Amino acid sequence: MIHCPVAGGKHVEPAHFRLMMGCAEMCRTAAHFMLINSPHHKHICCKCAEICSECSEDCERVGGMDECVVMCGACAESCRRMAA
Amino acid sequence: MIHCPVAGGKHVEPAHFRLMMGCAEMCRTAAHFMLINSPHHKHICCKCAEICSECSEDCERVGGMDECVVMCGACAESCRRMAA
Amino acid sequence: MIHCPVAGGKHVEPAHFRLMMGCAEMCRTAAHFMLINSPHHKHICCKCAEICSECSEDCERVGGMDECVVMCGACAESCRRMAA
Amino acid sequence: MIHCPVAGGKHVEPAHFRLMMGCAEMCRTAAHFMLINSPHHKHICCKCAEICSECSEDCERVGGMDECVVMCGACAESCRRMAA
Repeated sequence: MIHCPVAGGKHVEPAHFRLMMGCAEMCRTAAHFMLINSPHHKHICCKCAEICSECSEDCERVGGMDECVVMCGACAESCRRMAA
Repeated sequence: MIHCPVAGGKHVEPAHFRLMMGCAEMCRTAAHFMLINSPHHKHICCKCAEICSECSEDCERVGGMDECVVMCGACAESCRRMAA
Repeated sequence: MIHCPVAGGKHVEPAHFRLMMGCAEMCRTAAHFMLINSPHHKHICCKCAEICSECSEDCERVGGMDECVVMCGACAESCRRMAA
Repeated sequence: MIHCPVAGGKHVEPAHFRLMMGCAEMCRTAAHFMLINSPHHKHICCKCAEICSECSEDCERVGGMDECVVMCGACAESCRRMAA
């Protein structure tokens, strides 16, 4: 989250930043719905997988964010499994 | 959120409590997606409307929560408009 | 939160961005502690007032954010009253 | 968070429930301040350690929550190290 403002350039493009902030938020929400064992967690995890995938692809496009690409991709995969 | 543990009885039934906690969480998340102006906010608001509606109905079933019934219903309605 | 990535320049300086993200987070947390009527809310509101004040001053320094300056200042004042 | 409404009795006492909800919230907040690398994270982690300790002790008092006692205690310890 703070790597990007430090790196500047493409890293602070509104679309990229918005995606990252949305991804961080959605991951927390998904974790909370699993914590409270809500039947809504499947839908939430499904949406989370979608946002994590987008974020992973956008980190790849921006470049120099290999760790984020991998983490977001892994998170998307694990959310997809929860949503199944 | 804290009225129910104080009231006890049906107010602390797991299903009711889970719904209230999920509702509070989803409302915050929806507000955040609107704040960051994410294109995902429509989906999120749609899900939020669904959870708020459920919560409003469950507060009605439990009884003695007229204020919550009204607030959750109004919130569901406003989320539905955002999602449209 | 998204005005700044759009505006660019000083608006995306890491220190400014970090402050804004911390401010948004702390406000949510303070609201949650008041919602659950936790005795810890005073401490939390006190910290929230401090971060809101800093954010208000930094928005003033960056410039072109008069609305944020006013909102963060009002929020700081209201948190200070909760913490008293 | 949902074990307690299921277990009922002392597990749904308002003070205990409030503490648990505050603890879950504060842990998320502390994680967020570390994620954005905010200089405020020390204060936040210090407060988080205090709430986690209280929660650990209260879970011990309520009984039948050995896992929570250990987790909250470990979290308090790790927050204290971040705050140092």
